[in-house]
Amino acid sequence: MTLNVVVLAAGQGSRMKSSLPKVLHPIAGLPMAQRVINTAQSLEQTTMHVVIGHGADTVRDTLVGNDLRWYLQEEQLGTGHAVMQALPGLEGQSGVTLILYGDVPLTRRETLAELMSEVADKDLVLLTLDMDDPTGYGRIVRSEDGSVQAIVEHKDATPEQRKITEINTGIMAVKTELLAQWLPKLSNDNAQQEYYLTDLVEMAVSEGKLVSATQPDFAWEVEGVNSRVQLAALERIYQQVQAEELLINGVTLMDPARIDLRGNIQCGKDVTIDVNVILEGDVVIEDDVIIEANCIIKDSVIRKGTHIKANSMIDESEVGESCDIGPFARLRPGTKLASKAKIGNFVETKKANIGEGSKVNHLSYIGDAEVGAGVNIGAGTITCNYDGVNKFKTEIEDGVFIGSNTCLVAPVKVGKMATTGAGSVITKDVGDNELAIARGRQKNLSTWKRPTKQS
Amino acid sequence: MTLNVVVLAAGQGSRMKSSLPKVLHPIAGLPMAQRVINTAQSLEQTTMHVVIGHGADTVRDTLVGNDLRWYLQEEQLGTGHAVMQALPGLEGQSGVTLILYGDVPLTRRETLAELMSEVADKDLVLLTLDMDDPTGYGRIVRSEDGSVQAIVEHKDATPEQRKITEINTGIMAVKTELLAQWLPKLSNDNAQQEYYLTDLVEMAVSEGKLVSATQPDFAWEVEGVNSRVQLAALERIYQQVQAEELLINGVTLMDPARIDLRGNIQCGKDVTIDVNVILEGDVVIEDDVIIEANCIIKDSVIRKGTHIKANSMIDESEVGESCDIGPFARLRPGTKLASKAKIGNFVETKKANIGEGSKVNHLSYIGDAEVGAGVNIGAGTITCNYDGVNKFKTEIEDGVFIGSNTCLVAPVKVGKMATTGAGSVITKDVGDNELAIARGRQKNLSTWKRPTKQS
Amino acid sequence: MTLNVVVLAAGQGSRMKSSLPKVLHPIAGLPMAQRVINTAQSLEQTTMHVVIGHGADTVRDTLVGNDLRWYLQEEQLGTGHAVMQALPGLEGQSGVTLILYGDVPLTRRETLAELMSEVADKDLVLLTLDMDDPTGYGRIVRSEDGSVQAIVEHKDATPEQRKITEINTGIMAVKTELLAQWLPKLSNDNAQQEYYLTDLVEMAVSEGKLVSATQPDFAWEVEGVNSRVQLAALERIYQQVQAEELLINGVTLMDPARIDLRGNIQCGKDVTIDVNVILEGDVVIEDDVIIEANCIIKDSVIRKGTHIKANSMIDESEVGESCDIGPFARLRPGTKLASKAKIGNFVETKKANIGEGSKVNHLSYIGDAEVGAGVNIGAGTITCNYDGVNKFKTEIEDGVFIGSNTCLVAPVKVGKMATTGAGSVITKDVGDNELAIARGRQKNLSTWKRPTKQS
Repeated sequence: MTLNVVVLAAGQGSRMKSSLPKVLHPIAGLPMAQRVINTAQSLEQTTMHVVIGHGADTVRDTLVGNDLRWYLQEEQLGTGHAVMQALPGLEGQSGVTLILYGDVPLTRRETLAELMSEVADKDLVLLTLDMDDPTGYGRIVRSEDGSVQAIVEHKDATPEQRKITEINTGIMAVKTELLAQWLPKLSNDNAQQEYYLTDLVEMAVSEGKLVSATQPDFAWEVEGVNSRVQLAALERIYQQVQAEELLINGVTLMDPARIDLRGNIQCGKDVTIDVNVILEGDVVIEDDVIIEANCIIKDSVIRKGTHIKANSMIDESEVGESCDIGPFARLRPGTKLASKAKIGNFVETKKANIGEGSKVNHLSYIGDAEVGAGVNIGAGTITCNYDGVNKFKTEIEDGVFIGSNTCLVAPVKVGKMATTGAGSVITKDVGDNELAIARGRQKNLSTWKRPTKQS
Repeated sequence: MTLNVVVLAAGQGSRMKSSLPKVLHPIAGLPMAQRVINTAQSLEQTTMHVVIGHGADTVRDTLVGNDLRWYLQEEQLGTGHAVMQALPGLEGQSGVTLILYGDVPLTRRETLAELMSEVADKDLVLLTLDMDDPTGYGRIVRSEDGSVQAIVEHKDATPEQRKITEINTGIMAVKTELLAQWLPKLSNDNAQQEYYLTDLVEMAVSEGKLVSATQPDFAWEVEGVNSRVQLAALERIYQQVQAEELLINGVTLMDPARIDLRGNIQCGKDVTIDVNVILEGDVVIEDDVIIEANCIIKDSVIRKGTHIKANSMIDESEVGESCDIGPFARLRPGTKLASKAKIGNFVETKKANIGEGSKVNHLSYIGDAEVGAGVNIGAGTITCNYDGVNKFKTEIEDGVFIGSNTCLVAPVKVGKMATTGAGSVITKDVGDNELAIARGRQKNLSTWKRPTKQS
Repeated sequence: MTLNVVVLAAGQGSRMKSSLPKVLHPIAGLPMAQRVINTAQSLEQTTMHVVIGHGADTVRDTLVGNDLRWYLQEEQLGTGHAVMQALPGLEGQSGVTLILYGDVPLTRRETLAELMSEVADKDLVLLTLDMDDPTGYGRIVRSEDGSVQAIVEHKDATPEQRKITEINTGIMAVKTELLAQWLPKLSNDNAQQEYYLTDLVEMAVSEGKLVSATQPDFAWEVEGVNSRVQLAALERIYQQVQAEELLINGVTLMDPARIDLRGNIQCGKDVTIDVNVILEGDVVIEDDVIIEANCIIKDSVIRKGTHIKANSMIDESEVGESCDIGPFARLRPGTKLASKAKIGNFVETKKANIGEGSKVNHLSYIGDAEVGAGVNIGAGTITCNYDGVNKFKTEIEDGVFIGSNTCLVAPVKVGKMATTGAGSVITKDVGDNELAIARGRQKNLSTWKRPTKQS
């Protein structure tokens, strides 16, 4: 018996002023609807039903790869109408259906699990919230025994009911059999001519079914996004939540309000992260790593004890233990550094294996390269890996000393312990221990006159 | 009939601890007094009168270019005394005079317009504010019909009056004829021996004139600046206001508290701006542009679909559609990129036209250059545009391939589809399709001994 | 008669989840315990006693260089027990003992001075705090004459006592003679079987001694750190305090919440600091300096009127008056710039003296160099200072023009007003006024075929 989850993702979100459907706007790097799906799928074996409408094709294309059943809601006639679209997928099934919203992205797994646990011996369970100021929200009216009796909209509420601070979030779990019976009975006989999901409560109560409610631990779990103002606010809340998790797990953050975590970040112990660091995608940071200010690290592994200096960018790379990176270093995809390697300022690497203890300290481009251990690459070195149409590899073996401003015209190989002279263009392989030199001979002209100002 | 506006800008601002006159300290990149003038001038046809005192010459020099009449207040003897200096410019005129303050920079145009609208059938209208804690401020005493009866200073207020939460901001609009009559009657017969503008209210009421008040929508509109603490606080408020406007207009901001907008910023739809971006001067950003973290863009146009990667700086440049800039790119004044151009890391451009789809990907300096379409400029390329006294131009035609580490000694021209060899110093023109090469021949020396440690 | 100060620094801080002892975690760049020691030592002639336990060796090694007496608390049996360890250092002495905590880092000197002043004619003085919500804290029970009668733990407090908002911070000053008498009498006859320092109050009162209390001006002065969440919160509070001091002293900060001050920072008048700047160690910034966004300056002096553009890093350097640095400049240790020097983008300097008005504008590495006045160093210039084992010096005399992409193979000297041709590798000294050139002659090949795509 699987859990059916219906995710409502058809809304337009016109206040977003975007050509991107609202539910695809990201929070912490992930589309909101994807977050909802991920959380639901983490619960147990689920069948996911997604109701789409505005930007249906884009939503479907973006969420491809998830195992989802799609339902098109051609007109948006209320939440009840939206869930009704999924009825063909629910009919004849037992178990529970969980109703979620593609624009309420941050509900925690634990909160949904509690809702599921509560519904086990109930018929309908609402997720509700206590608010200091519930103005405008539907109030939860409970009977004396604590069971939920009704949801009363703010405008219909009596003065007494308006004092109720428990409000409806819209999220609910309901026995699938009952849901399938009730959905066709929803009516749009109201001012807005919409079908309201909240009417299920009245049906349930009138049939003597058991209706109760659970609450999330945090108000932000049930906040929805209708504008970019709300999107930005929720992004900040979520960043704060994640930052606090890092702190609790033993990471020092110089400023928890100035770190951005947009993916799956694993951090070891005694990691220190300075201000304005961004971590994206799958990032693993081992113990004792120091990351200085303004670094951006994406889909990479940083091994134990490495020091990433300020203003460095690392993408799809693996940085070994006790390396020394930056400042102003840029490691592009395919960079792999052995331990104790050093990449210095204004250096770009790409598809480069760099051996233990090797150094590229200044102003260099090392691409499509195999660099051995103990190599010193001088300032201004460039691997000329591209002839305009093809890319070629540069091999630099252990112990090589590449003089400053060397061009290594690939394909080319510099053998063990070889040296290249400063300013050389190396087009032919260099043998072990050889010195390769390729430059003009210096002439000093004493008769030369400096240029003068032209008019 | 024009509107007379008197801006009081004579104060010393000793708590600023600055050699710059207080009213010239900037908020969001613009001197406070200039903001006040700009807002007033946006109202309707105005005659601007500015009363200056401390740092008078500097204020006048800084605000040059505005059509302003200057009045020197040699001693600072109160707000009434300040306005009295402008009396020669107001006498004999009809219409309305609006009194503003050079250190109250953020009053909105809408707020002043409402004040102007209110004064149309009144004689004196104050801008007032409701404060939770009005301690220390002059209270607005109203009669039963709601008209303003008096401003009572905090120290003179009865316990009952101290409960009034409506306070005087100092900003007011008054019929010019009346103001001209009243100003000479102001007295300094008080403890401070100062002339108070607020005494006008008593005069107006005693003459049976109509006195009323309007309120701004936001408290920050009437906040004044007397210290750098207040300056910084108001700067942040204004940045927040501007950030929220961007969000409402369809821009995604990763953190609305970490963006700085210091000028006239036009943003299209579905623009995404990451953390710590600074936009200065006149900046146009078209639809679908992505600006990554830490970018600084000044007086530039970024066309549709362009992606500005992190840590890039762009100044007085025009970036075409679908370009790919950075990270760590620096576009200096006079850079103009056609569509799909690519400027990569550690690249500096200046006075450079770069054609469609052309690439300068790594570690290069391209200055005073005309670069055609489809050009590939290799890593480490430098246009040697300067001989110590003169600057010269480099021309690179369509389809050229510039090898890595090429020096192009200007004036020089590289013809269509030509190639330069890596590490070449190009001093003479290169014809279409030619390969130009200028470098030493490689020699590999096998007898060479590595240097040893010197003591 | 010296002041005895006992600093309790033995706690484990298991919630820090760190292998670093808690009291060594830094606030604003300085270990917490070091801050406590520095503040105490600023009071008057002190004898410092430090009680250590967890990570005792590391604490001792880190705080080496301070004149400290160490006491090992092998088991942590309460604050009373901790102070008891220092008894051998206190016995037989007169005067006052001040008891501080290594994890309460931000108590101000003024606050301790007031405590000391109060204890002069008392026997025991507590530092106490008024809290809005004192739940969980020990309450200060005072007699009618205002003297302190008792500290009552929250759990032992009567409902009436729980309404007391004055709480014990743990910091106290006590006559040393009395402390030495009382410490041995402390008992662990309580639920936790710990020795509580707070029991001293009861002893003092029962002996008719004079007990009183003083308060700090700010609550953050007595906040302790038990987790990285608290560490980060206190870090931000302290940064805010420091930022406000800068503002008050006449520095403009674009965002007081986005500046980090980690050391002894001296700032002149009319300095402007943009967002996300970090100042570390001993930094002196003279009048009228502008520091743009994202700069990191450490242990350096920046003289009057200099402009540091965005994204620059300066470490152990001295920057003269009216210099122009960056953006993207990196000044490494030993850089010394005379006035009006200019270091531009993607330039690294190290152990370099650079003369008045000299320019290194683009993409260069200048290390181990003496550069005269009025020198222009072209883009892409590299001082080849390292042969793999030794470092050598480059000398460039006044008025020299170094052409772009020049390699200066040290040791080498370029004489006054000399010039080097672009792309030259200079291995031999160049005489005054000479032109040195070392590059291949250009050949243009018209028969050359471009590479084609390889499969």
